[in-house]
Amino acid sequence: TWLVLLAQVFGLTAVVLVAVWMGHFQQGFAWQSNPGLEFNYHPLFMVIGMIFLYSDAILAYRVFRNDKKMYIKLLHAGMQITALIFVAVGLKAVFDSHNLKKPDPIPNLYTLHSWLGLITVILFGLQWVGGFATFLFPKAGMATRIMALPHHQFWGIAILCFAAATACMGITEKCIFSIKDYSQRPTQAYVANFLGLMIVCLVTTVIYIVTR
Amino acid sequence: TWLVLLAQVFGLTAVVLVAVWMGHFQQGFAWQSNPGLEFNYHPLFMVIGMIFLYSDAILAYRVFRNDKKMYIKLLHAGMQITALIFVAVGLKAVFDSHNLKKPDPIPNLYTLHSWLGLITVILFGLQWVGGFATFLFPKAGMATRIMALPHHQFWGIAILCFAAATACMGITEKCIFSIKDYSQRPTQAYVANFLGLMIVCLVTTVIYIVTR
Ligand code: HEM
Ligand code: HEM
Ligand code: HEM
Ligand code: HEM
Ligand SMILES: O=C1O[C@H]([C@@H](O)CO)C(O)=C1O
Repeated sequence: TWLVLLAQVFGLTAVVLVAVWMGHFQQGFAWQSNPGLEFNYHPLFMVIGMIFLYSDAILAYRVFRNDKKMYIKLLHAGMQITALIFVAVGLKAVFDSHNLKKPDPIPNLYTLHSWLGLITVILFGLQWVGGFATFLFPKAGMATRIMALPHHQFWGIAILCFAAATACMGITEKCIFSIKDYSQRPTQAYVANFLGLMIVCLVTTVIYIVTR
Repeated sequence: TWLVLLAQVFGLTAVVLVAVWMGHFQQGFAWQSNPGLEFNYHPLFMVIGMIFLYSDAILAYRVFRNDKKMYIKLLHAGMQITALIFVAVGLKAVFDSHNLKKPDPIPNLYTLHSWLGLITVILFGLQWVGGFATFLFPKAGMATRIMALPHHQFWGIAILCFAAATACMGITEKCIFSIKDYSQRPTQAYVANFLGLMIVCLVTTVIYIVTR
């Protein structure tokens, strides 16, 4: 349906905006040789994994309604594990950027963003294991699956909301830390704020589609 | 049920935490005579109105299932309008605190927090008018009400999520702006971060209850 298309527009715009923000306005990417630029992989990979791929993995069930059940399951689970890999690299990047900072490292896990972010990633990992154990593992019976489904759906959506709220806080922090004239609204501020709005629009659209 | 009680615990804890944060750690409250302290009403009133009262107004439908329909409607609509009044005062406080700042005013509406916050408040106002026009206004027929209900429910919940995300960004900003040693995790940082977690727990619980 056209709502799925709209979700793709929001999602792709978000990925483009975060890539332009980090790649252009925040001087691009590097790995451990330059912890300041290594940080820039964090927003990019979190938005691709925890927002874009996560959303599309959920939508896969709605888009490919007519294909064989096992194929969709593998696609859904495969996209979610791909999301998890992006997330792992994105977390490695941000922890490196704190721990390798010269002359002094930046402390870890002091913000609400980092707390909710860590909780979100842990829940996401548990959801993956739970989804695998109930819906793919052959020994789980039909009764288990029927019982687990509403919880799997509720938490799948709840964790997506947590990810969006976490991303919005991350955007807020990065703007305050790194855009010196943020309050003068330079172009970069629009890029960052619109990135946040795109994420909110994407997640709202996905949840609207999935709850119809 | 006990989940409604749990929601009250999260909600009251959030209100206590924001009151302690602003009232104790951020030197308490004042009105236009001291714009710096006038700001402190903003988080307090937004959390009371846009999170606590809003949540309980939604739960009213679940708690008073057995009372006369008209009483519950009036309670629900009345709580939502009370929430809107708190929100209006909370917004007045933050705009004053920017515009009356000496020697120079602080610019308005440059953050993602303020953008999503304004969108949230406008949607909340529209939802109130829409809810009133369909469910209380006597001329709206049964067919209209049945058609409108799923949209009223979806947007009621979506706006609550927007409010929670906005509040989390506001907490993040205030911590970075006003807690000089935030990264050293002083007591105040725990108060603020736990406030955010309580809001997330409250909203998750409310949505869980309402979608059962
Ligand atoms: C939903 C996806 C995200 C998750 C789960 C997440 C998670 C985290 C975690 C766990 C940390 C702590 C690292 C440490 O303590 O060393 C962190 C730090 C950080 N993140 Fe994110 N993040 C996400 C998205 C973003 C985005 C989109 C941005 C910015 C555009 C961002 C900006 C930051 C910044 C500036 C820090 C360093 C300050 C701090 O510790 O809060 N994050 N993130
Ligand atoms: C972190 C990982 C996962 C997340 C976040 C997640 C999320 C979701 C969400 C939100 C839905 C609801 C979609 C809808 O109603 O259209 C869903 C459905 C479903 N998921 Fe997952 N999922 C994950 C992993 C898995 C895994 C590993 C499996 C195993 C195959 C799985 C199997 C299913 C099944 C069978 C459905 C039911 C679709 C339906 O008939 O509506 N999920 N998932
Ligand atoms: C969900 C409820 C909330 C809404 C709708 C909201 C809305 C707003 C709006 C519209 C502004 C812009 C004022 C201006 O430009 O002059 C603002 C500013 C601000 N708010 Fe909130 N707010 C909420 C909750 C909070 C909370 C809980 C906190 C902190 C604990 C907070 C902290 C701030 C800060 C620090 C500013 C000034 C910086 C800025 O303009 O973003 N807000 N808020
Ligand atoms: C900003 C204002 C409002 C918000 C955010 C809001 C939100 C909500 C939400 C989330 C629900 C779903 C609750 C549930 O499923 O248990 C709901 C239900 C309802 N609301 Fe509102 N509402 C608002 C204003 C109003 C107004 C002014 C009326 C007029 C009387 C109204 C009438 C109703 C009715 C009839 C239901 C159906 C309850 C049910 O049978 O499940 N709402 N509202
Ligand atoms: O992780 C962080 O990244 C930025 C900056 O150090 C790199 O641009 C910042 O202030 C952090 O706390």
